Amino acid sequence: MSNIIATYLVHDEGFNLEKKAEGIALGLTVGSWTTLPTVEQEQLRKHKGEVISVEKLPNDDVTDAFLSKKGQRGIIKIAYPSVNFTFDLPAILTTVFGKLSLDGAIKLLDLGFSEELYKSFPGPAFGVQGIRDLTGVHERPLLMSIFKGVIGKDAAELREQIKDQSLGGIDIVKDDEILFENPLTSIEERIPACVQGLEEAYQRTGKRTLYAVNLTGRTFDLKEQAKRAVSLGADLLLFNVFAYGLDVLQALREDPNIHVPIMAHPAVSGAYTSSPLYGISTKLLLGKLLRYVGADLVLYPSPYGSVALERGQALAVAENLTTDSIPFKPALPVPSAGIHPGLVPLLYRDFGLDCVINAGGGIFGHKAGVIAGGKAFRQAIDAVVDGISLQEAIKSAPELKQAIEQWGSSEVKA
Amino acid sequence: MSNIIATYLVHDEGFNLEKKAEGIALGLTVGSWTTLPTVEQEQLRKHKGEVISVEKLPNDDVTDAFLSKKGQRGIIKIAYPSVNFTFDLPAILTTVFGKLSLDGAIKLLDLGFSEELYKSFPGPAFGVQGIRDLTGVHERPLLMSIFKGVIGKDAAELREQIKDQSLGGIDIVKDDEILFENPLTSIEERIPACVQGLEEAYQRTGKRTLYAVNLTGRTFDLKEQAKRAVSLGADLLLFNVFAYGLDVLQALREDPNIHVPIMAHPAVSGAYTSSPLYGISTKLLLGKLLRYVGADLVLYPSPYGSVALERGQALAVAENLTTDSIPFKPALPVPSAGIHPGLVPLLYRDFGLDCVINAGGGIFGHKAGVIAGGKAFRQAIDAVVDGISLQEAIKSAPELKQAIEQWGSSEVKA
Repeated sequence: MSNIIATYLVHDEGFNLEKKAEGIALGLTVGSWTTLPTVEQEQLRKHKGEVISVEKLPNDDVTDAFLSKKGQRGIIKIAYPSVNFTFDLPAILTTVFGKLSLDGAIKLLDLGFSEELYKSFPGPAFGVQGIRDLTGVHERPLLMSIFKGVIGKDAAELREQIKDQSLGGIDIVKDDEILFENPLTSIEERIPACVQGLEEAYQRTGKRTLYAVNLTGRTFDLKEQAKRAVSLGADLLLFNVFAYGLDVLQALREDPNIHVPIMAHPAVSGAYTSSPLYGISTKLLLGKLLRYVGADLVLYPSPYGSVALERGQALAVAENLTTDSIPFKPALPVPSAGIHPGLVPLLYRDFGLDCVINAGGGIFGHKAGVIAGGKAFRQAIDAVVDGISLQEAIKSAPELKQAIEQWGSSEVKA
Repeated sequence: MSNIIATYLVHDEGFNLEKKAEGIALGLTVGSWTTLPTVEQEQLRKHKGEVISVEKLPNDDVTDAFLSKKGQRGIIKIAYPSVNFTFDLPAILTTVFGKLSLDGAIKLLDLGFSEELYKSFPGPAFGVQGIRDLTGVHERPLLMSIFKGVIGKDAAELREQIKDQSLGGIDIVKDDEILFENPLTSIEERIPACVQGLEEAYQRTGKRTLYAVNLTGRTFDLKEQAKRAVSLGADLLLFNVFAYGLDVLQALREDPNIHVPIMAHPAVSGAYTSSPLYGISTKLLLGKLLRYVGADLVLYPSPYGSVALERGQALAVAENLTTDSIPFKPALPVPSAGIHPGLVPLLYRDFGLDCVINAGGGIFGHKAGVIAGGKAFRQAIDAVVDGISLQEAIKSAPELKQAIEQWGSSEVKA
């Protein structure tokens, strides 16, 4: 039978996980069971939620103290028959974590879809290979950067910034997620300006850099806005999916007239994922679900930067974005925030070839300027892919040498 | 200057709230300040975030232990110039709690809009008075109920259920939030059936009961689905706004062709609101923001039922939904979950005349049946509004007497 299996972490004040699990399985499906007449049980059997497993976890005094009540911690898995819901994420989330999200200390850790359900989701249109084909970069992690201090700047300034970044060897430059339509840098102003800046750089280097444009505005205007951005020259779309909804990203992905990759930004997602006791796990929300609905690239905090995600969680997101066990194209993890060239060996060890190294201050903060900042990253990336230590690489890479003197290195003492 | 003032609860490991606040105010606006040349400061001044206040809170060993790190707790307020964003909630949430939501223990407690910003939001189309006019109920709290065990039932069963509820004196009957389009009870099947059931009851009682239909499906199909539901006879729309997005509810509210009230369901909202350390406060999300975008009624856990919300929080939601200090029509609070007639005095004390008493098991679980269940609630409501104790009322109200024997009372010992 087709279903969804939801995995929850619970803190059960009733100290009876079996009863808790059964209450959820019934409460979110047929309501009651043992009190029903046999004929009604027959009618409802295919709709009934089923407890798959119940696992006790060691109790934890610190959590008990924090919640001001003792509870049995545990992991419970419940199967929800797919006959109960339509195959869209609003229906699925409402079923598995609708009113349940309000019912005490409970966190949705994972969702397992049966084959039939996968068919209703698109997955990435481009995925890793598609992004590699667009950038022409096949043998190394990609390098992405952002603008510096974009608010209050005009399109001419952005043009110069993006040109310098391209000259530094950046593969993708993205808008800041807090750049909205405004008189100075509306998409009509900034996209042509940035396209021009990138063309000027291309004339000098022969290197094509892509521009990811922040898709913003009212929900029902997004498709038109996306098409306008693409027609103006946007190579990718950056999208604050958690300020809108996962289903909105899916609809953008499925629109045949929006034929560029979509990069999901994690803005606002911390409101769901940060608590260990409540909400939705990072690996499910930013890993699985974003891949299901069709994000080609997913930004999220790396384990090493200024806004850090615990390493196990960061790796689990990347695993869900790339694993072969999910029948969609793999998406590119973009572990971000506070990245400098000295962290490239750690990022490569953790995320491998198919990831994006994303930097802001680590590029435009380089003492020799933005171009040197880009070059330093490219030198670091080339070194790690070639199996050369940064310590060795800096002998013939002055920009990288300078970056490591400035920020240190996970491998080389500055 | 027009702006939004955001209030955060923080747990600052740096033990320097002023620095933390300044870092947020700059990081989410112009990026940096003291290092900028004077000419650039002039250019950017109107874009710069400003720290409004910083207030230390007593530190808390239990929280420190839970987070495994000591921190300075505090409340900080920051003003974001409205010139930086467009006046829609995706842009506003991304600005004030985008990447910040991922940055350690921080909770968004409140948002204060300047006058100019209010003008971009619609507020409820109907509000308290509009719902009262539609129901014809002016002098008491409204009474709402749901279907029992709706999954797997057919339209004929729903018709009988809703008829009995209307015969019991219910003002509004709503779909379950987990009822999606399905072969047995698609809106084409169930709305005409329920309209017929309500008409049959009306012929007997002269009482009109309204039917709130769950609006479901893919985001970009919702407007058409809403219009179809209304044309089939839906009196109100129930909407799982947090499975979609606040901006989607606003768009439904603003569509001139969808001219029925919208009832917001809190499904999935617990993923945002439940943690005391992370996410978004209940009073902001379910109180203010739902009113701003145009919910006419807002369901949320009452302080007294099976899924309970702490009383102060429940009152704060109601206050935000109804206060005159917000320039929109007031919305109706619907404190829900586990409500029985004996709780009516408490609900009336807390929420007053302008609220909806919402019950499920407390109506159809009545030992004398659904009609008696509805009557018992109406008797309790009439009593409290007339200043009569339930103890007194049960002398001439046999259904209420039975309900109180069954579930007890917040006022009368059963």
